[in-house]
This record gives sequence, C-alpha cells and structure tokens, in this order.
Amino acid sequence: MKVLVDMDDVIADYEGGFVKKWRELYPGRISIQVEQRTTWGLEKQYPAEFKDDIMAVFTSKGFIAALEPIAGGLEALAEMKSKGHDVFICSSPMKIYKHCVVEKYEWIDMHLGSEWVRRLMLTADKTMVSGDILIDDNPEIKGCAKPSWEHVLYDIAYNRSVKGKRRLTWKTWKQVLDFDCW
Amino acid sequence: MKVLVDMDDVIADYEGGFVKKWRELYPGRISIQVEQRTTWGLEKQYPAEFKDDIMAVFTSKGFIAALEPIAGGLEALAEMKSKGHDVFICSSPMKIYKHCVVEKYEWIDMHLGSEWVRRLMLTADKTMVSGDILIDDNPEIKGCAKPSWEHVLYDIAYNRSVKGKRRLTWKTWKQVLDFDCW
Repeated sequence: MKVLVDMDDVIADYEGGFVKKWRELYPGRISIQVEQRTTWGLEKQYPAEFKDDIMAVFTSKGFIAALEPIAGGLEALAEMKSKGHDVFICSSPMKIYKHCVVEKYEWIDMHLGSEWVRRLMLTADKTMVSGDILIDDNPEIKGCAKPSWEHVLYDIAYNRSVKGKRRLTWKTWKQVLDFDCW
Repeated sequence: MKVLVDMDDVIADYEGGFVKKWRELYPGRISIQVEQRTTWGLEKQYPAEFKDDIMAVFTSKGFIAALEPIAGGLEALAEMKSKGHDVFICSSPMKIYKHCVVEKYEWIDMHLGSEWVRRLMLTADKTMVSGDILIDDNPEIKGCAKPSWEHVLYDIAYNRSVKGKRRLTWKTWKQVLDFDCW
C-alpha cells in the first residue's frame, strides 16, 4: 500500500501550537480550543481584526519547528513502514514559505529521523501525488488531477460535518483501515 | 497535458553555478566544464580529495538562490501554461536541506513569480508524482512506484549515453514533444 499522510493537525499539533502561542502573546484575547473549532482556516473563526496577528503567528520563525507531535501518529507511520508499506508525508506549505518549508524538514528530521526526511513531499496540489490512501484533516482536497487515492479524513472538530468519507484518529486507524488485512 | 519539469540543470544552471563558485574559491584547482562532464553526480568526476569541498559548495547559503536560469526554460514553462497545460516544477532537495529547500522556493518566486511557487513540488521520489511527461536530466529516475509519466531527458553531456528515451533542450522542445499537437 502507498499511504500519504498530511502533516499539520494529523501528525503535528498545529491547532494546539497556535493556541499556546496566541495565549502567550495575547493573554487578554479570546482563543478557541480545538474542540470548538468549526472552520477550515482558523482565522475565519476569529474576529477579523485579528487576522494579521494570526498570520504573524503562523509564519513566525520557529512556529512549525516547535509543534508537538499528535499522540500515536509517529508510531502509526513507523508501524505501517515496518510492515513494508510505502509511507510518505505529504504536506502543503504556507504561501509565506520563508520559515515554513525548512521547518517542516527539521520537524520530520527531529521527530522521525533522517530516513523519513526523504519521505517528505511538499506540494500545494496533493491530487498530483499518487497513492492508495491520503490521510488528511482538510475537508476538501482540491487540485488539477483526478486523485488515485481515497481521501480518509483525520478526524478533527472542524471537519465533522463532512459525510461520506472514512475518518480515523491514531487511536482508531487500524480498525478503520482494516490494517491487519493489508 | 500534465508536465513535470525538473529544476537543477533543466531550468536552473546548477553545473554552471558550481563551476563559477569553484573557480572563485579554488582558482588553482581543476574544474570541469559541463561539456566535459560524464557522470551523474559531479563529485564522482573530481579527485576524491575534493569531495568535502564540493559538498560544501552545493550546500552553502546562497548557492541555489544564485543559480542562473537556463536560456529558454522559463519561457517554455510559461508557454506551456499559457496553452492551458498543467505545469509543475518537480525537484528533489539535497539531503542537507538547510539552505536548499527555502532557496528553491525563493528561486521560483524570483524568476517565475508567486503563482509558480504553488507549482513547485519537492520530493525525493518523483515516481510518486503523476503526470504525462517528466522533463529531467537524471539518466535514471528511481522510486517506489511505477511512473505514470514518460521520462523525457533534458539533454546534457553526462546523460548522452542513455538510449531509448526522447531528449530535448529548450531550443528543441516543441519539435521533440510535438507541442503544437497537444
């Protein structure tokens, strides 16, 4: 099996990293915990006046590198790989790429090791990547090609309204994907 | 048509950039012009004692960002895109990724503009990317998947021993690919 795994909010806790940094910088402002999040695109759920400050957090030096791993994600990738499957991390960089792209490489290097750095793919269009499964929290993966993969949602509050797709977390992935039968 | 185009020695003059820097740093040492190059992997054609110095040039800050465009390459990409084809730049970063990855984004931004930054894909395994054609100077593209694309060689001295593949330069690409019939 060829498995593509998204990075932000699938193996790296982007939402948690944002809230932590936001509260440090702006302790008096509202912050929205992940369980209350309803929109793809965090800034859409915050007052419009905060948009620039939110973008400044996302694009700040060290933000991506400091994200915590999501529990069970790295272990799941290692288990898939140990069974001989081809596992790739497939991530779309931010448009403001200055710190983001190198820090994605650093994050993989730090948390999974250099062998996995060669398994990181950066692309704004994931439909151009071939695979059997893409595990991604994005409710809708857009691009110019007809994807070869099945989009399996990584379950998170803001994608719960999406129906008709399998969804998993790193607690349920083996059952959902019927991993023992691969 | 979905066209994937490699970056180093296809649209960016990596060989030329190396020789220029090498001569600046080590004017007394031998340097090999691109027409005399016979190996995939420049360091294999230089005395072994220079290997670390060669790698230091490749991975130095500013090396990728300063590469000159290969004549006609950027214009060819723009022409393909203007005719409605899906064109992506598909590049494998160096293992020592510190400066390389962000500078590839900067290079595309500088020479092609921000819209093309979204068309840059970084992957060590190009067989995982779907497309009709991959234009690449690498004599042999290895990876874990059966590619959907035809590998068309970008002609350069060190790949001239490869037979059985179409080959082009930015002077001949329209004829070789029969572009007017796409």
